[in-house]
Amino acid sequence: MKKHAIGITREENFADWYLEVVREADLAEHSGVRGCMIIKPWGYAIWERIQRKLDELIKATGHLNCYFPVFIPIELIQKEAGHVSGFAKEMAVVTHHRLIEQDGHLVPAAPLDSPLVIRPTSETMIGEAFARWISSYRDLPLKINQWGNAVRWEMRPRLFLRTTEFLWQEGHTAHATREEAIEETHQMLSVYREVAEGAMKIPVISGEKTPSERFPGADATHAIEAMMQDGRALQAGTSHFLGQNFSRAANIRFQDSNGETQFAYTTSWGASTRLVGAMIMTHGDDDGLRLPPRIAPYQVVILPIVRDPAAADSVISAARALSAQLANRHFADEPVRSHVDLREESVARKRWEWIKKGVPLICELGPRDLQAGTVEITRRDRVYDNRNTIGTEPLVGSVADLLSEIEGGLFGDARAMQQAKTRTDIHDFADFSDYFKNEEESGFVLAKWSGDPASEAKLVDLGVTIRCIPYEQSGTAGRCVLTGKPATIDTLFAKSY
Amino acid sequence: MKKHAIGITREENFADWYLEVVREADLAEHSGVRGCMIIKPWGYAIWERIQRKLDELIKATGHLNCYFPVFIPIELIQKEAGHVSGFAKEMAVVTHHRLIEQDGHLVPAAPLDSPLVIRPTSETMIGEAFARWISSYRDLPLKINQWGNAVRWEMRPRLFLRTTEFLWQEGHTAHATREEAIEETHQMLSVYREVAEGAMKIPVISGEKTPSERFPGADATHAIEAMMQDGRALQAGTSHFLGQNFSRAANIRFQDSNGETQFAYTTSWGASTRLVGAMIMTHGDDDGLRLPPRIAPYQVVILPIVRDPAAADSVISAARALSAQLANRHFADEPVRSHVDLREESVARKRWEWIKKGVPLICELGPRDLQAGTVEITRRDRVYDNRNTIGTEPLVGSVADLLSEIEGGLFGDARAMQQAKTRTDIHDFADFSDYFKNEEESGFVLAKWSGDPASEAKLVDLGVTIRCIPYEQSGTAGRCVLTGKPATIDTLFAKSY
Repeated sequence: MKKHAIGITREENFADWYLEVVREADLAEHSGVRGCMIIKPWGYAIWERIQRKLDELIKATGHLNCYFPVFIPIELIQKEAGHVSGFAKEMAVVTHHRLIEQDGHLVPAAPLDSPLVIRPTSETMIGEAFARWISSYRDLPLKINQWGNAVRWEMRPRLFLRTTEFLWQEGHTAHATREEAIEETHQMLSVYREVAEGAMKIPVISGEKTPSERFPGADATHAIEAMMQDGRALQAGTSHFLGQNFSRAANIRFQDSNGETQFAYTTSWGASTRLVGAMIMTHGDDDGLRLPPRIAPYQVVILPIVRDPAAADSVISAARALSAQLANRHFADEPVRSHVDLREESVARKRWEWIKKGVPLICELGPRDLQAGTVEITRRDRVYDNRNTIGTEPLVGSVADLLSEIEGGLFGDARAMQQAKTRTDIHDFADFSDYFKNEEESGFVLAKWSGDPASEAKLVDLGVTIRCIPYEQSGTAGRCVLTGKPATIDTLFAKSY
Repeated sequence: MKKHAIGITREENFADWYLEVVREADLAEHSGVRGCMIIKPWGYAIWERIQRKLDELIKATGHLNCYFPVFIPIELIQKEAGHVSGFAKEMAVVTHHRLIEQDGHLVPAAPLDSPLVIRPTSETMIGEAFARWISSYRDLPLKINQWGNAVRWEMRPRLFLRTTEFLWQEGHTAHATREEAIEETHQMLSVYREVAEGAMKIPVISGEKTPSERFPGADATHAIEAMMQDGRALQAGTSHFLGQNFSRAANIRFQDSNGETQFAYTTSWGASTRLVGAMIMTHGDDDGLRLPPRIAPYQVVILPIVRDPAAADSVISAARALSAQLANRHFADEPVRSHVDLREESVARKRWEWIKKGVPLICELGPRDLQAGTVEITRRDRVYDNRNTIGTEPLVGSVADLLSEIEGGLFGDARAMQQAKTRTDIHDFADFSDYFKNEEESGFVLAKWSGDPASEAKLVDLGVTIRCIPYEQSGTAGRCVLTGKPATIDTLFAKSY
């Protein structure tokens, strides 16, 4: 039987495998605060790479970063709550602003006149500012973004995927016309798609949510949906067209070029640290994480073999020289990120550590390699025992091609997995129901739907939702997979995270 | 009388001038939440530049970024509080995790078993993790950093300088030896100095705090102290050697190479959004902000003059071409950040806007310039009416030199101001007291001090503190400026922010 670096395989128990990878790759851990995680250096470095890529695209599309307070007055939430039913109410509430000592214990003191909520999202806070900042059509479009933390009290937390506190960006824009706001919504979904597919190598399906799955108060919610290796879908980014709903609640008005006062059209869109979870469940294997090169904090790790003390110095120098040469090469318009691991551990142990952490290329370099001008490389997109000896010069010369091949390979694997887990041949509810009741065989079902909201009730017992109405529509007619009625809408169903 | 872009001059009222600059440069504003600010795009872009520079140096010195929860269990605070008296207790306390509707109002519900505090700083949280992560000397040094928000309830908030919520980085490290931890403390203070002087062009004095001014629980606190134009000092970064105090409270122990169990030595160090305030008060003038080029979000702004519709297209094209040429040049190892302002406003209005925002170089380009191959430039380090015509090619060729001259000029001005506001000729308490009682004439006093903590009491009524014992010591003997006793320690006194 083949041994794997992760104690439990994906097949044995996917949920446990996931937690094991998070632990073994040293990405994050639970803190003493229920539902809140500590993101450890390797996990945070991955998040920083995702963040940088996303931030570049957010800026390139004309958005400006700002920062709004983490506290939202309860009255502002109230305003939206009056407007939007279904507003999530599981939030952290600040009621006091002092601790005092009482009988040797610290207890809350100095109650606030009115409680504050830790932002679950900032539409209310930012809407209030927009109302102050916007008075004329010349102030529009107003396109801003914020990086920060947000809190939604989670009853069933799961590292990266559902945490009480999470890190994210939330974009908020206001426009003079409906058309422009809708275009913005689509543009930002494309940005998410580019980060997911281009950088993270996660294939996604873009589409619109049904009314029942919309962000509360939105006129339309768009999302990218990814397929995980256990057959569950994961929403990897959402973009909301809010119409005039939030601008009416927050009084965001402007004078148009004819001097008429109008409500602005607003949008909001966000992506969070759950993307790290998506990457693990898309690319991970039974040896741990596999990182797409654009996201990997180190793209190459070099392990000098220094068992022979006489040769140690020259081997270490050679490893450093190789690292410097690699750092002079470019991949995806950035210098190659190379690291020499000099810790006092056995090479085998270090190799396994980096395999579990998902580094795309691991190079081992010993005294014999030095003489031969070679290194032994392990490609993380291939099985772990498939090591190769390669000349140092060819390695340096071809490192960009190798990384390119690796990211192509990861995307290819993920695409094949997504396709294998997409059924397009299920046309009636009996088959649909059997499919989703069979735990072994979950995934996407792409089938016709009538568009009747009432029919979605049939999905509840199956634990299935409509993930989206994909933009890509066949235009054919058929029968609704839920009701058997005539239907034309190609619709994506799945269980989801 | 000369007119200025800021409605109130520094001389008339420095505090009001400061707020006016923040408003006119569109850096930040108060939010509806007491003490919490909204950082607007220009202010946030400045912060991002400071942050990037600091982050680079933090990483270059071997620290890894992480993220710890924003919530700290009250029990952890209690642990420190037991250990450290004088722990600040003005904090935001979360007591509930739900809002429910009652009589049409949202009210807190679902009380927590035990309240949570929003982090005022993360020693407690990170100490607990360190205790779990460290078991052997091989795990040391452990050097991490966190970027995030923190909250300390402020009774007298002031934009950027003192806000209830602020953004910052907090570094936390653990070491096997006292020497190594002390070295780390000094290294990080040097990093702050490099960012302050090298990038922000703010001259600072590095030194150690007296015991009464230490971070609660620290064995030593080191700081960089800057002088503002109103004669008040501003602490621009602090680095604490925590000895074994926090490791004893949090139980951070390791087995040394002899197999003996020891407590680790820890450090912490932080710098925050108040640095933006320091920059305003160091470099600003009566026309607004003056930004050092390494920090300026745009280093050059180009204003095309398009009054003549027939020439508009060619002027705009030329402006864009100039911007692209400038962006091909490098300053301080980065492409020059150039921006063409195409908004429909008068050139005069746009020029004043960028002057107030502090852009180092403003270029105006009209049809006549186009023919002559010139632009008209305004250098923000000079008086506003000192405009110059310069050839486009020489401008592109010398832009790095110009920016270098500007940053040199800003640093020179700031250094001259700091020196003019430093008195080294005050030797007895009568003169000392007169000096600080005269509101017009505040600044640094560098004088001898005996080192007797009791003597600091004499400073309280004057509103003065010992800012630091500078590292640079003359080694001479003299008389203590507070007590008249023999004294050798050169000491820096000032009123402060």
